[in-house]
Amino acid sequence: MAAVAQDTRTGQVLMVAHMNQEAWNETLRTGQAVYFSRSRGRLWRKGEESGNFQRVLELFVDCDGDAVLLKVEQIGGAACHEGYPTCFFRQITPDGLKVIAEQVFNPAEVYKQ
Amino acid sequence: MAAVAQDTRTGQVLMVAHMNQEAWNETLRTGQAVYFSRSRGRLWRKGEESGNFQRVLELFVDCDGDAVLLKVEQIGGAACHEGYPTCFFRQITPDGLKVIAEQVFNPAEVYKQ
Repeated sequence: MAAVAQDTRTGQVLMVAHMNQEAWNETLRTGQAVYFSRSRGRLWRKGEESGNFQRVLELFVDCDGDAVLLKVEQIGGAACHEGYPTCFFRQITPDGLKVIAEQVFNPAEVYKQ
Repeated sequence: MAAVAQDTRTGQVLMVAHMNQEAWNETLRTGQAVYFSRSRGRLWRKGEESGNFQRVLELFVDCDGDAVLLKVEQIGGAACHEGYPTCFFRQITPDGLKVIAEQVFNPAEVYKQ
């Protein structure tokens, strides 16, 4: 199912990801957002590499029961692996994509090989 | 791709839906949210039955380019076909699901057969 994370403090929509049953169970058990990475084919404990965990404060389910909304405290202030507060850091404008946020961290420094 | 609609005024996350290329094109062309309903297998002009259209004010794309965020004016004040402002009107609590919003309209009156 789809999972949307929203920053409780700023109201910003941070990201959309996928959860399977195990990710959901782990999110409930740990109180931190755990997604299922379809590209990597495994559980993805958000922040496991960058330290930018998401502490889940409130959980909501949608009318169809196929999407959840996580209101979170974004540890480190950046949800995006590109170092921005939100994954939606690019606005679509008539002149093309425009970056509307500032980087909180430098991905090259955080994700070392 | 996943599409998240957020109410510009209240900051509420309203819904998560799916867009295919045609839905995306129609959203851009009309300035109103058009999704692709996978259950019905066709384009879904949000509000086509209830009158609760979503006027798109701002558009954002995520880092991976597989999700979009629509900041909208929710006409009629209810995004959910069950008559609530948001589809995420149920909070998950230790005591079970708790309805945290008030109905704006009565679905039985709006969706007549």
